[in-house]
Amino acid sequence: MGDATKARIGDVARVAGVSVGTVSNVLNRPEIVSAGTRERVHEAIVELGFVPNASARQLREGASRTAGMLVLDIANPFFTEMARGVEDRLIEAGLTMALSSSDADPDRERRVLEQFAQQRLRGVLVTPSRGTGDNLGILLDQGTRVVLLDHRPSGLGLDAVASDDVAGGRIALDHLLGLGHRRIGFLNGSLDIKQCRDRHDGAREAIAAAGGDPDADLVEIEVAAMDAANGYGAMLQLFDDHPELTAVFCVNDLLALGVMRAARERAVSVPADLSVVGYDDVAFAGELAVPLTSVRQPTYRMGAEAAGLLLERGRPRQILFTPELVVRASAAPPG
Amino acid sequence: MGDATKARIGDVARVAGVSVGTVSNVLNRPEIVSAGTRERVHEAIVELGFVPNASARQLREGASRTAGMLVLDIANPFFTEMARGVEDRLIEAGLTMALSSSDADPDRERRVLEQFAQQRLRGVLVTPSRGTGDNLGILLDQGTRVVLLDHRPSGLGLDAVASDDVAGGRIALDHLLGLGHRRIGFLNGSLDIKQCRDRHDGAREAIAAAGGDPDADLVEIEVAAMDAANGYGAMLQLFDDHPELTAVFCVNDLLALGVMRAARERAVSVPADLSVVGYDDVAFAGELAVPLTSVRQPTYRMGAEAAGLLLERGRPRQILFTPELVVRASAAPPG
Repeated sequence: MGDATKARIGDVARVAGVSVGTVSNVLNRPEIVSAGTRERVHEAIVELGFVPNASARQLREGASRTAGMLVLDIANPFFTEMARGVEDRLIEAGLTMALSSSDADPDRERRVLEQFAQQRLRGVLVTPSRGTGDNLGILLDQGTRVVLLDHRPSGLGLDAVASDDVAGGRIALDHLLGLGHRRIGFLNGSLDIKQCRDRHDGAREAIAAAGGDPDADLVEIEVAAMDAANGYGAMLQLFDDHPELTAVFCVNDLLALGVMRAARERAVSVPADLSVVGYDDVAFAGELAVPLTSVRQPTYRMGAEAAGLLLERGRPRQILFTPELVVRASAAPPG
Repeated sequence: MGDATKARIGDVARVAGVSVGTVSNVLNRPEIVSAGTRERVHEAIVELGFVPNASARQLREGASRTAGMLVLDIANPFFTEMARGVEDRLIEAGLTMALSSSDADPDRERRVLEQFAQQRLRGVLVTPSRGTGDNLGILLDQGTRVVLLDHRPSGLGLDAVASDDVAGGRIALDHLLGLGHRRIGFLNGSLDIKQCRDRHDGAREAIAAAGGDPDADLVEIEVAAMDAANGYGAMLQLFDDHPELTAVFCVNDLLALGVMRAARERAVSVPADLSVVGYDDVAFAGELAVPLTSVRQPTYRMGAEAAGLLLERGRPRQILFTPELVVRASAAPPG
């Protein structure tokens, strides 16, 4: 109602029954305003068709020509390849990108997202760790566009780009089962991380579909961090505790890199004595001592598409890619 | 002079002969104030011992508990390993990190540093590309702490952490010359990038010291980007144009990864037909089909030390590490 161009901040304050300072806070520092008050002010803004003036708008979105990106681990080439896709697309649009990592630690994630909120970024791309919903609330409350990355949300309210991790887990295991492996190790991250949970589900589905018993046939180890050092340590443990395993599926290629090192040190021949399948098909996968069979995601393109969603002004969209298996030399029939 | 706690922004304006708004701009948006005016205001601030009030200070440094980091290429594991060192140290201090990459493109670098300036970050770590001095001016003018990373400045006015790249180039070539190689390829980045220039100088020094002629014995190719794809392309070119080369030195391990792929495709055996030495000793170097001999820098520690400098309040310091050669299997006497 009313003439939108004429509504002033004082009108918003009057309709919401708060002070002008409070309206300003809702626009500029919403995190210090109670949720109830924020809601009243937002309703008044909508009712009056209030458009913040240029400088307030700038504070809200324009001041920053930067988008934030939060991933699980910046040292994982999967995420930096995706970040390249994001950054190149943003640069085209005259924006820059700020990348941080959560280490899959919810506290660290919360801290980074709070900083993002205070910086009034143009938008934020997030690969969630755990309990991310609460942390995203701050950004959504202040009208910051959020795109979920490498994460398929259960609802449809948010932009998201992901690839089908259940299918990814399934094709990795289908490959190993097809080669004749029956007892298979699985180095995974925390099941609280959606990608890990989905690949876990896909792997178990494949075993069940082949007539096996996932509880007995899949020996799953949850690593503390999904990097090469943890892959190395976890594989040494599997060699000791489960010498019967003839194959191992790694939830990412960094873990597989560590597995290769552990195998070399124990003089276990890949693939004659141990088949290895990775995930992500990062740049070094094809150049390893034993070229790595890996599940490929369109990593760079996922990043570029996610940046595209962030720049759009329409309704939230969700884009789901299908992963594919890249067969190289690291998996073979059991010896 | 005067009682520092009593000096007010109006006093600064009076002494500088400008309006209060201009002083505010110098504190908060210095980029819109002319250099001459900025200087007068800074002098007045120093003369009066003016301390900006809490909210102005917060705008200047406190509002942001974030430090910015700008590297040449976020997809290079060398930089992300360094970023992990930075981030872990910052997190300890309750700060978060925002990482961007310049692609060694001065325009892109300028844009990112301008965004960093507008965000009033706690500090900024930069691996400079070219002509970075001008871009850093904005940050320095507003009092943002700047630490140069993987870059040894000529002057002593700035904090810096680097490793001795001249020594690095020298030990790589000393190794190849010691094995008996005489005609050696060198895949390098732009000589405008200081690390590339320094490694170039070190490589040439080593050849001269061994009684060779750097102009004749070193076949240097400048790649557009220091990544695996460019290493692959440049090596194919060297195979065609310089079949006499028995060894190649790569200014980073990503280029060496591309060289390995080119050699595999051309059925050139490493190291029997071609010796390869890389630089950075990234995580995958030891796990390649032919484990890579590489010049190691204390990457993670360099990042952590740089973050430490950023958190310090003292005079600028410069920390220089010495690189070392990690000998693996990719270099051997010429066949």
